[in-house]
Amino acid sequence: MHAMTASVLQMIRRAKSPLSKVEIAEELGVSLSAISVHVERLLKENLIEMSRIGVSSGGRKPKEYALNKDFGLIVSIELETTLVHIALTNFNCEVLCLTSSDIEITDGPDIVLTRIHEHVEQMLLDNDIDKASIKGIGIGIPGPVDFSMGIPISPPIMPGWDQYPIREFWAKYFDCPCYVDNDVNIMALGEHAKGLKFEVNNVIFIKIGSGIGSGIIYDGVLYRGSTGSAGDIGHFDIGSDVVCWCGNKGCLEASAGGKALISKGKERAIFHNSGYLLDILNSRGELSMEDIGAGLLQLDSSCVELVRESGALIGKVIASIVNFANPDLIVIGGRIAEFGDIFLAAIRQSVYQRSLPLATRNLIINKSSLGNMAGLIGGAFMTIDQIITQATDNQADTYF
Amino acid sequence: MHAMTASVLQMIRRAKSPLSKVEIAEELGVSLSAISVHVERLLKENLIEMSRIGVSSGGRKPKEYALNKDFGLIVSIELETTLVHIALTNFNCEVLCLTSSDIEITDGPDIVLTRIHEHVEQMLLDNDIDKASIKGIGIGIPGPVDFSMGIPISPPIMPGWDQYPIREFWAKYFDCPCYVDNDVNIMALGEHAKGLKFEVNNVIFIKIGSGIGSGIIYDGVLYRGSTGSAGDIGHFDIGSDVVCWCGNKGCLEASAGGKALISKGKERAIFHNSGYLLDILNSRGELSMEDIGAGLLQLDSSCVELVRESGALIGKVIASIVNFANPDLIVIGGRIAEFGDIFLAAIRQSVYQRSLPLATRNLIINKSSLGNMAGLIGGAFMTIDQIITQATDNQADTYF
Repeated sequence: MHAMTASVLQMIRRAKSPLSKVEIAEELGVSLSAISVHVERLLKENLIEMSRIGVSSGGRKPKEYALNKDFGLIVSIELETTLVHIALTNFNCEVLCLTSSDIEITDGPDIVLTRIHEHVEQMLLDNDIDKASIKGIGIGIPGPVDFSMGIPISPPIMPGWDQYPIREFWAKYFDCPCYVDNDVNIMALGEHAKGLKFEVNNVIFIKIGSGIGSGIIYDGVLYRGSTGSAGDIGHFDIGSDVVCWCGNKGCLEASAGGKALISKGKERAIFHNSGYLLDILNSRGELSMEDIGAGLLQLDSSCVELVRESGALIGKVIASIVNFANPDLIVIGGRIAEFGDIFLAAIRQSVYQRSLPLATRNLIINKSSLGNMAGLIGGAFMTIDQIITQATDNQADTYF
Repeated sequence: MHAMTASVLQMIRRAKSPLSKVEIAEELGVSLSAISVHVERLLKENLIEMSRIGVSSGGRKPKEYALNKDFGLIVSIELETTLVHIALTNFNCEVLCLTSSDIEITDGPDIVLTRIHEHVEQMLLDNDIDKASIKGIGIGIPGPVDFSMGIPISPPIMPGWDQYPIREFWAKYFDCPCYVDNDVNIMALGEHAKGLKFEVNNVIFIKIGSGIGSGIIYDGVLYRGSTGSAGDIGHFDIGSDVVCWCGNKGCLEASAGGKALISKGKERAIFHNSGYLLDILNSRGELSMEDIGAGLLQLDSSCVELVRESGALIGKVIASIVNFANPDLIVIGGRIAEFGDIFLAAIRQSVYQRSLPLATRNLIINKSSLGNMAGLIGGAFMTIDQIITQATDNQADTYF
């Protein structure tokens, strides 16, 4: 595909509403006649379609173009440590069907990917979908990724996965490309491209689950860093004495992540005689994030305090990031984000206290609008992005 | 100027060596014949020149093109709190003459800019330079800037400068554009464009003077953030009890910047009876960064310890930034950077201890190769960049 054709396609598919040729030409700084060639080509290839007729400012009404969302299907996979989510989306990243399943990431790539593959095949069968309509597979994993190669790089919580050729695994079963990225990166992509109702260029997506990480959008584009590890905020030093799994003291993750919250909850149950938490611990022998979430809903004081503490610590680190990166928008996602307003208020309070006034002048801090779908939608978005880019790199005239 | 002509010019001027049309065409993804049009136009306008004849891989030897560095002159101004540096550079950012002068930034913009203007006129007179050969004026200031407007935005250490129209001041005397940017931003630009002997895309320039700040290059481009305040690392929380001028406790700047170093030096002199520092304090009634630097050269143990402490604290914050931004290169600049190897070693030690292994795999941490010329060279680079960009925006055929 010609580079300019790809640019036109990217612009149309990223737009929040259909575009006219004039709009495309102006944005890309190219003549209207040049744009027409590319639009015609995309129409012919069935990648875009004519949308409703645009509002004219006098004279003939301009035609508008939108992505043909039924061009093909994407399998989007989000891998967590003990769960996998699989979605089938259309070319506009809308989820058509969805399944989740237990998995142990520590079983290693052969076992885990084989099981995921079985689920995917079952999903296609159940929905009567022809394999040929699958145009790409996107996978988000909870660790650093060499994106160009599609391999995990020393992922700390994925033993056995280091440098495993995930793409090659899928190539055995599907005749379409597969792309692998870090889970938080694709959440950031999904939220930016499909979650927001307004346009912003600089977004940092903070995922707070067992661990804490972030995905960075600069000037509208995902920023991966030099070795693909950008966005790691879990090991920012917050000055505490708690030892982290990484070997250092004072990491944010060790004091404020999901795991930390659970162990603090246990401590409170036992040493501070917190009724609600102690009851659960006594009856089940363990605590979960969901228990703390439920306690929060009942306004159990111990749970409220735990969540506030965690929010304040995370907010302190976000304040530093806001000073450094000066984003338009901070998005809070991941499982703890479901804790809601008390958590968000604690984060905001910390950020406004410690960030410089100029950096927070227009700053928005919100929960993810896609919630737990951010990763799957972002995975599909990333995959389609890459399909288009790769087609350009290959300089081939047709590419799907 | 046509957008593509500008792209060709930018590419030629940013290249470390002259380029052939084939190289330009390949990089920009445009046909050779299309590139020829733009190259001819630039030659005709005297903006580029034919350089040495390139090495051929057989057949006719390709012509190579380089910037015409004598196209015009730039006045580059670097404003510090008590000093101003003024340089005259050619179009390749090479400094032709240079002067420094005392100034009190707190005197406000009218007094300070009038004095700077006198110095500039004197410099032109002394060097027998015609005003008409000045193509642009670039100014770096120690505070946040609305870059598109060219005005300081609530700069904390520049009372009276908030929203002052610096461009309009210069428009009274010069018939060329003026651009204003934050001092650390232009240092980062200068180092990236003209200091490095190797090519890297993601660079963070850390300036350590009285305060501490940073300038960010992502994917080869200066990143300013949403409100132009990106790169502020002086107020990262390092968990100390020291109160900062910003009102918060624990800011990096309050414990490790130049001012902090001097007050810690005084404390040591008085309470720990440190001979070297006490002698200076007794004889002059005050201490300066230069005194601590001189003590370091003599390996005075108090000075060594002070500088090491400062390096360790700064390194801790850089470690967080390395985790978050995953750059190729960290450049240490500013006055304290002149402290040399002891300081640099302390920073490096801290970074390698606290950053994630993947993020430091290929990381380089170096002193600025341009030293105290980074700001002036970067100011000229930024100015020429803007002249070219603006000419494109105006869509004018000729522009200088």
